[in-house]
Amino acid sequence: MAEAVRHDKTARQLRLLSDALDSGRLGPVRRLVNTLSPAEIGNLLESLPPGKRTIVWGLVDPEDDGEVLVHVGDEVREGLIADMDPDELIAAVEDLDIDDLADLVEDLPDTVIHEVLKSMDRENRERLEQVLSYDEDSAGRLMNPDVVTVRADTTVDVVLRYLRLRAELPDHTDHLYVVNRRHQLIGWVALQSLVTCDTHTPINALIDSDLSAISVEASAEQVAREFSDHDWISAPVVDENNILLGRITIDDVVDIIREQAEHQALGAAGLDEDEDLFSPVARATRRRLLWLGINLATAFLAASVVGRFAATIQQIVALAVLMPIVAGMGGNAGTQVLALVIRGLALGQLGATNLNVLIWKEVRVAALNGIALGTALGGIVWLWFGQWPLALVIASALTINLLSAALAGVMVPVTLKRLGFDPALAGGVILTTVTDVMGFLSFLGLATLVLLH
Amino acid sequence: MAEAVRHDKTARQLRLLSDALDSGRLGPVRRLVNTLSPAEIGNLLESLPPGKRTIVWGLVDPEDDGEVLVHVGDEVREGLIADMDPDELIAAVEDLDIDDLADLVEDLPDTVIHEVLKSMDRENRERLEQVLSYDEDSAGRLMNPDVVTVRADTTVDVVLRYLRLRAELPDHTDHLYVVNRRHQLIGWVALQSLVTCDTHTPINALIDSDLSAISVEASAEQVAREFSDHDWISAPVVDENNILLGRITIDDVVDIIREQAEHQALGAAGLDEDEDLFSPVARATRRRLLWLGINLATAFLAASVVGRFAATIQQIVALAVLMPIVAGMGGNAGTQVLALVIRGLALGQLGATNLNVLIWKEVRVAALNGIALGTALGGIVWLWFGQWPLALVIASALTINLLSAALAGVMVPVTLKRLGFDPALAGGVILTTVTDVMGFLSFLGLATLVLLH
Repeated sequence: MAEAVRHDKTARQLRLLSDALDSGRLGPVRRLVNTLSPAEIGNLLESLPPGKRTIVWGLVDPEDDGEVLVHVGDEVREGLIADMDPDELIAAVEDLDIDDLADLVEDLPDTVIHEVLKSMDRENRERLEQVLSYDEDSAGRLMNPDVVTVRADTTVDVVLRYLRLRAELPDHTDHLYVVNRRHQLIGWVALQSLVTCDTHTPINALIDSDLSAISVEASAEQVAREFSDHDWISAPVVDENNILLGRITIDDVVDIIREQAEHQALGAAGLDEDEDLFSPVARATRRRLLWLGINLATAFLAASVVGRFAATIQQIVALAVLMPIVAGMGGNAGTQVLALVIRGLALGQLGATNLNVLIWKEVRVAALNGIALGTALGGIVWLWFGQWPLALVIASALTINLLSAALAGVMVPVTLKRLGFDPALAGGVILTTVTDVMGFLSFLGLATLVLLH
Repeated sequence: MAEAVRHDKTARQLRLLSDALDSGRLGPVRRLVNTLSPAEIGNLLESLPPGKRTIVWGLVDPEDDGEVLVHVGDEVREGLIADMDPDELIAAVEDLDIDDLADLVEDLPDTVIHEVLKSMDRENRERLEQVLSYDEDSAGRLMNPDVVTVRADTTVDVVLRYLRLRAELPDHTDHLYVVNRRHQLIGWVALQSLVTCDTHTPINALIDSDLSAISVEASAEQVAREFSDHDWISAPVVDENNILLGRITIDDVVDIIREQAEHQALGAAGLDEDEDLFSPVARATRRRLLWLGINLATAFLAASVVGRFAATIQQIVALAVLMPIVAGMGGNAGTQVLALVIRGLALGQLGATNLNVLIWKEVRVAALNGIALGTALGGIVWLWFGQWPLALVIASALTINLLSAALAGVMVPVTLKRLGFDPALAGGVILTTVTDVMGFLSFLGLATLVLLH
């Protein structure tokens, strides 16, 4: 119900926009677009085919241009940047926060980067360079160097006066960081404490030093995990000497979590999470060809197994009819195990100490499923073809393939992870290759042994 | 690299814990466990097989018990609750926030619920009942009724004095809500403004009324979307008369986003996101059988198509060898389109206005891929079997199946969504059924027409 409401809302916007665009009345389009937040505008632009996208992009309030660029996928971003002249681009990005600017900078033309750097004061330029010196997908790249720090040997009163002088705080400031003279992090003080405590309270008494700061080298994934494990709104980033370098805020973490989920969902199909729904046909074709080519190679591997048994098939054509069932069911069962194991690995729940327990559990589940489904499948085959040896062969082959699927479902992702690959990306292809090959081999092999004698 | 660090950290904890458990030294286990946050303890418990899980659960500081229960999946939670006696349970849950309690309540035994309700004051009991009156997965269920409200006709000074009297604020309070006498929401004031503005400033001057409150009936998905579209830390929840009912905080939203991602990843394999990695074999088998049974039925559908062409296969066995390639490649290509469309639907990016553009794009991509892969496949088949008509048949069949896959990849999820089903759950099965059937039909059908004459 409420789900429908949401869907309706975006669909309505899209329809209104589309109607207005078709009729050429750009005034209403501009008004509609500029009631949206930058993230919503980004989403809207992503949902428009290239021609309309260019028109709407031209109508976005230039003040929002930079934020919108931050909120769209890489591929759409490239197209939007290509539609802007250098002056527009410079105006759009020069007021962005350092972390957002760092996110955009490699998509910008060199001349624009040069101009933007020139327009910054030295402190900000150095901060940007520092942020850019860290790996993409590291805490250093996600952090914003703009933090509010206070000293421990002062009082709430003094801090409040300092804040009133400052007049503005960085977005999502929920803590002030307490540092020593060497800018090393001692602890943090919640904004909430400042407004609820007596103004004479020394800061010392309010410090929560029971905080784990984020290492500047931590991965984006680790950052996301720490935030959800500790329900943080923001967290300080420090280097190996505990010197405070910046802070990461939850809004960026939410983006990371969303991107990780998309990366996993699209990656399993060999796509990039930055793929544009409306990317140019030539580009989309080229990108998908690689993935389909890999799959074609694995399909030949499975076909070559079938080829070995051509003589058997020629004698019993029913085998050709039934063999996709055995292979396919193995793939389905293996995919279930794979999904469970990939989640376990992502949450760090699987290690040397419990792997054997898991394998033993999955093998028993597969054996029981093999008995149940094998009986059903064998029964149907017996009714269909009236040959009980064939029924026995397919039931046995199914059980063997379900057992292989269980083993592969656990071992393929665990091995990929150990070798440093992302199990969510390559796991599916390898698993179904195993289950196809094992399915054809066990079914046609058993049939050759049992039925041809 | 940093990824490895994270993995190492959890793996190290697991290993340490496992060693300590094996040696029976429970003191170190207790110390290790109680340095962790409730979410981390939850994750650790989920990664332990049932026997060890029970032991470690007994060592968790009783003060954390409630929070840990909130942080584990339903299936693991059931097991943990079964290990506790009623008094322990009551002690564990009675100090939880209303929203967390509401989340747990249906997993608790009736006697415990009764005792907990009895121990609450009337106000809290009414609040809990109100929260429970809303749909699971709605904003009403996610909200915490504990909010700080102020009046517009006062000053920063007065509000600060009020907050100092209150001495404590609900977690993650970043805004105070401004309401009128009827408790209708007028706007909000950032805590940041209170500490940066002059204390004589009237609250009126600080109100940001440009906020969209969340409807109490909004879905969890919609709530998550609004939070990431607006970079909110917390947001007010109102009823249809704009009366303030509670607030939702970002930490719960992060959990929703994680759960949605797991729901999608596991749901595509017919699993529930609450599935325990170490669930009992009988339960796991039963749950998976349903899904595998559905897949068995669709596999028979595809097999029955092959059965129609038994006579053709008997004459040309190469067809049996090659037919899984055509079917499988269609499945792979269709899965790519499906993944892209499911994301588009989830983001509300696909509607009547751009569906045709997308279909037309995907058809062209499929045609180009058909030419490229068909040529490759045809070439290999020609080399392998030395029959150019067979090569031509398989190239054509592949192209036909890729086109079907493109159409099904778009239309299957769009249709499921329109009918009110979750495309991420059922989309894959339906899609591969279409590509299997079309793959066998086009390849064996063309072969019968072309090669047998």
